[in-house]
Amino acid sequence: MAPHQVEEAEAVDAEKQPISRILFIVAMQTEALPLVEKFGLTEDSDSVFPKGVPWVRYHGTYKDLTIDLIRPGKDPNLGVDSVGTISASLITYASIQAFKPDLIINAGTAGGFKAKGASVGDVFLASEVAFHDRRIPIPVFDLYAVGLRPAFSSANLAKELKLKVGKLSTGDSLDMCPQDEASIIANDATVKDMEGAAVAYVADLFKVPVIFLKAVTDIIDGEKPTAEEFLQNLASVTAALELTSHQVVDFINGKSLSDL
Amino acid sequence: MAPHQVEEAEAVDAEKQPISRILFIVAMQTEALPLVEKFGLTEDSDSVFPKGVPWVRYHGTYKDLTIDLIRPGKDPNLGVDSVGTISASLITYASIQAFKPDLIINAGTAGGFKAKGASVGDVFLASEVAFHDRRIPIPVFDLYAVGLRPAFSSANLAKELKLKVGKLSTGDSLDMCPQDEASIIANDATVKDMEGAAVAYVADLFKVPVIFLKAVTDIIDGEKPTAEEFLQNLASVTAALELTSHQVVDFINGKSLSDL
Repeated sequence: MAPHQVEEAEAVDAEKQPISRILFIVAMQTEALPLVEKFGLTEDSDSVFPKGVPWVRYHGTYKDLTIDLIRPGKDPNLGVDSVGTISASLITYASIQAFKPDLIINAGTAGGFKAKGASVGDVFLASEVAFHDRRIPIPVFDLYAVGLRPAFSSANLAKELKLKVGKLSTGDSLDMCPQDEASIIANDATVKDMEGAAVAYVADLFKVPVIFLKAVTDIIDGEKPTAEEFLQNLASVTAALELTSHQVVDFINGKSLSDL
Repeated sequence: MAPHQVEEAEAVDAEKQPISRILFIVAMQTEALPLVEKFGLTEDSDSVFPKGVPWVRYHGTYKDLTIDLIRPGKDPNLGVDSVGTISASLITYASIQAFKPDLIINAGTAGGFKAKGASVGDVFLASEVAFHDRRIPIPVFDLYAVGLRPAFSSANLAKELKLKVGKLSTGDSLDMCPQDEASIIANDATVKDMEGAAVAYVADLFKVPVIFLKAVTDIIDGEKPTAEEFLQNLASVTAALELTSHQVVDFINGKSLSDL
């Protein structure tokens, strides 16, 4: 076989092997800790990451799976969770290098659009992801900026767990300016987060499959201000995220990528 | 001495040692190639970076300095330069790990505000950098999102080379929506780019000093549309960037950080 045929054959084989190692990428401590507890993970005492980064790794074995859960940790200067696309990109990059995961799960909270069927507490499986705050009005650069990527196809997972499926749009602001809104509409998004498309970008460089579980903390096209609703619902919605993540991992256990 | 005193003493010593290794972070091939030629750098045939990333390294020795110049390369799917904060963060992270530079120079093109004294062809030394497209209206998260950081103090460099000095504001869009504009005004910025604050964020994690050289390709508060003016002036303004970068490196050669 020619080299590209060997690579293709290996890729097909990998899709049929049982999934062995999962990498969770989770932006906030509040989102991460219920998952850490549910899967019985322990925090690394010696970081595998370079000195200086605030990134936190939890790991362990759950059923037949090795699980790493990485969160970007507290900003060294300000002490708040290092949310957003830059930290998410960096931890995805460093974690792929360190752990060679078979599958990445980016789990977290999101805003939802009721006009597209979202309610507070829903956990969406994203079908595709794109950015809504990167505008470069030059041909081809415009597509690069939007960065549309499909999530790893997981129709069986969605069907079995009766998950709502919708498109995810990512930007570095919690709020939404008119230009963001226009891009979110163009992206046909049901949920809006601050990390997904960045995780997808890095995962795509290394051809690591990624799925997105996004739990709705606030309704963007609703009455309440986003920041207030987000903070109010954060704790209760992370419980829904934990439940769904648990069901998803139970479904994945013993299966291959092509079974998803 | 207590450990923190040892660290402080080492930091002071490092500031007095001659600068030995410089890392250039440059977003676009058009910006990078004149510098590569000027400093006689050669492109790596075997990448030091992981398989999958499009990042390109050039390196060589110029006078007493080891120079690495990294650009993020062409997007694997679309073939355009991987501009913006995510790629800039990733290459800054991976390059700091690989090369342990004494000083980072983020050199590139930028938009300028004539109301703040910028003209096409000016090369600015940034005094500080911040983001203008990350809004999180929750206390402390708001400061994290803006990400204000000073550039490494280099008053002697600015004085000797008669460089214009101004504040730099970074976002992932080439254009500027009203919310971006309000943030840019709040950041008191003279120049606007798509990478600077991201490079500063990563450099700050590892306490690597960074300076910014930003050459003005287009006047944002002028008559012409940004994209058109940017493309029109890109080649000629990169010549100005090359000249200033050359003068800056000549100034740095043989000096310590505290001499800058």
